[in-house]
Parts: sequence; structure tokens; C-alpha cells
Amino acid sequence: MTDQMADVAGLSKPDNSQWLDMVAWNADGLAPAIAQDASSGEILMMAWMNREALKQTADQRQAVYWSRSRSRLWHKGESSGHIQHVSEIRLDCDADAIVLKVEQIGGVACHTGRANCFYRKLGADGWETVEPVLKDPAEIYAGKA
Amino acid sequence: MTDQMADVAGLSKPDNSQWLDMVAWNADGLAPAIAQDASSGEILMMAWMNREALKQTADQRQAVYWSRSRSRLWHKGESSGHIQHVSEIRLDCDADAIVLKVEQIGGVACHTGRANCFYRKLGADGWETVEPVLKDPAEIYAGKA
Repeated sequence: MTDQMADVAGLSKPDNSQWLDMVAWNADGLAPAIAQDASSGEILMMAWMNREALKQTADQRQAVYWSRSRSRLWHKGESSGHIQHVSEIRLDCDADAIVLKVEQIGGVACHTGRANCFYRKLGADGWETVEPVLKDPAEIYAGKA
Repeated sequence: MTDQMADVAGLSKPDNSQWLDMVAWNADGLAPAIAQDASSGEILMMAWMNREALKQTADQRQAVYWSRSRSRLWHKGESSGHIQHVSEIRLDCDADAIVLKVEQIGGVACHTGRANCFYRKLGADGWETVEPVLKDPAEIYAGKA
């Protein structure tokens, strides 16, 4: 068993669901969730969760978000295989933002095939792309709806 | 000049404002902004920005957010002195989330006196506080409105 596997196994949660009620869900029942690489600290992506997404994330120890564009639960990696193993879940002072510490399977969090979604950096020429495509999206989603 | 000062000095932006229009502001004209410690990678806080907040952040090289509770621009540290020097601004693939790489003055990002706002970790007993108060909030905001 690797250290990272041990970390994921170490994620625990209460038997009751009171902790889910303590999140200050917004008017749409959502809260922003930031996925951070547990080893490197790299911020991989930001997505949204509703109560059920957070519950399933804790139950499965894999990141499940709420897709606002598709209005349904989105098990990260369901199409790409790039699932996120969750070793830790954090809540902020206002209880309205979540951080997930994850191990990113495939090393690609972004649908563009990059390691993370924050690949544009402000510079003299505007938003400059500073991170390479590691995997062709056509390959990632080959044969997927 | 320290490396961090050099980093802050290195933040550049275009002469025009087109880059501000490329952000996919939500229906309220806002986008979530995540402040990350530029050295350690620690996620310090998540707040919101409008167009003017992002513009001022880039102009001043210090984090300026939009306070939703007070409905006004919020120059982080204006009361506490805990300003954030910004060395890098990132935008995600959907152009609707921002990451700031910052140097946190005072080592305290949270109004509770903790290093960061994500000090609660999910465990068997629910949300468990796992980070210490470094500075008494009464002291941080002494004499401030």
C-alpha cells in the first residue's frame, strides 16, 4: 500500500448527516469546491457541489461534483477515466467553500488535456497559456458521448 | 530585493482592458477568486471579485475582492493590515474562476486569526478544527470599525 492509498483510506466521516447541513449552501443549493493535488499543492480545478455531490464524495472517496451545465451529478472521470481520489475534505470559515485534497488519476484534471484548469496567466499580452496539453482531448474522450 | 518582491514586481498586464472582458462574470458580475500562498502552495481563502476588483488587484498588485455582505470593494487587509501581495493571476478553462498567487502579510489570511480559512477538516466527529489561531481577532481588529 502506498502512502497515497493510505491517505485515501484515512478519510473518515460521521455516521450521521449533520455535517452536510452545516455547509452554507447558496440559493441554488451549491457551494464552490476547489480540488488541490494532495502531494504538490497544485490547484487543479474549481467546480460546484450540492449536498448529494458532497455526500457521494465522502462515501466514495472520489470527487463527485454538480454539473451546472448538465444539471446532474458529475462523477469526475466518468468519461475520461481521470477520477480524483479524495484524501481530505476541508470547509472554510464561512462554511460556504470546500477544498478537496486529491490524487489526480492520469495527471490530467482539465478537459483540455492539461494538468490543471488554471493554465492561463495574466501577462503583458493578456491571458497567456503557460501549461502544455499533456493528452489530446480527442483521445481522452474517444468514443464517449 | 527578495525573490518574493521580485515576483510581485514581475506581475504584468496589458495596456488595454480587453483581458477583463474575457472573464465569464456570473449573473451578479462576479467570479470566485482563490488565494494561494505563492511559496507553500497553501490555499488561503476563497472570495469573490467583480471587474473593478480584478482591475484594481492587477493595478495595485494587492488583492482586492468584492465583499458580497457589504456590497463594496474590499481591499484585503484594509482593517487587519493583512494585505496580500499578488505575484501571479491565473484564469481557468471556463474563464469563470481565478487563482491569485500571493504573499500573505502577517501570515494570517482568515478573520478568525488563522493562517488560512480552510481550517475545518471532515472527520469521524464532523468538521474538526485542525489549525490553530495564530493571532487573536480582537487584537487584529482592535479599534477598527
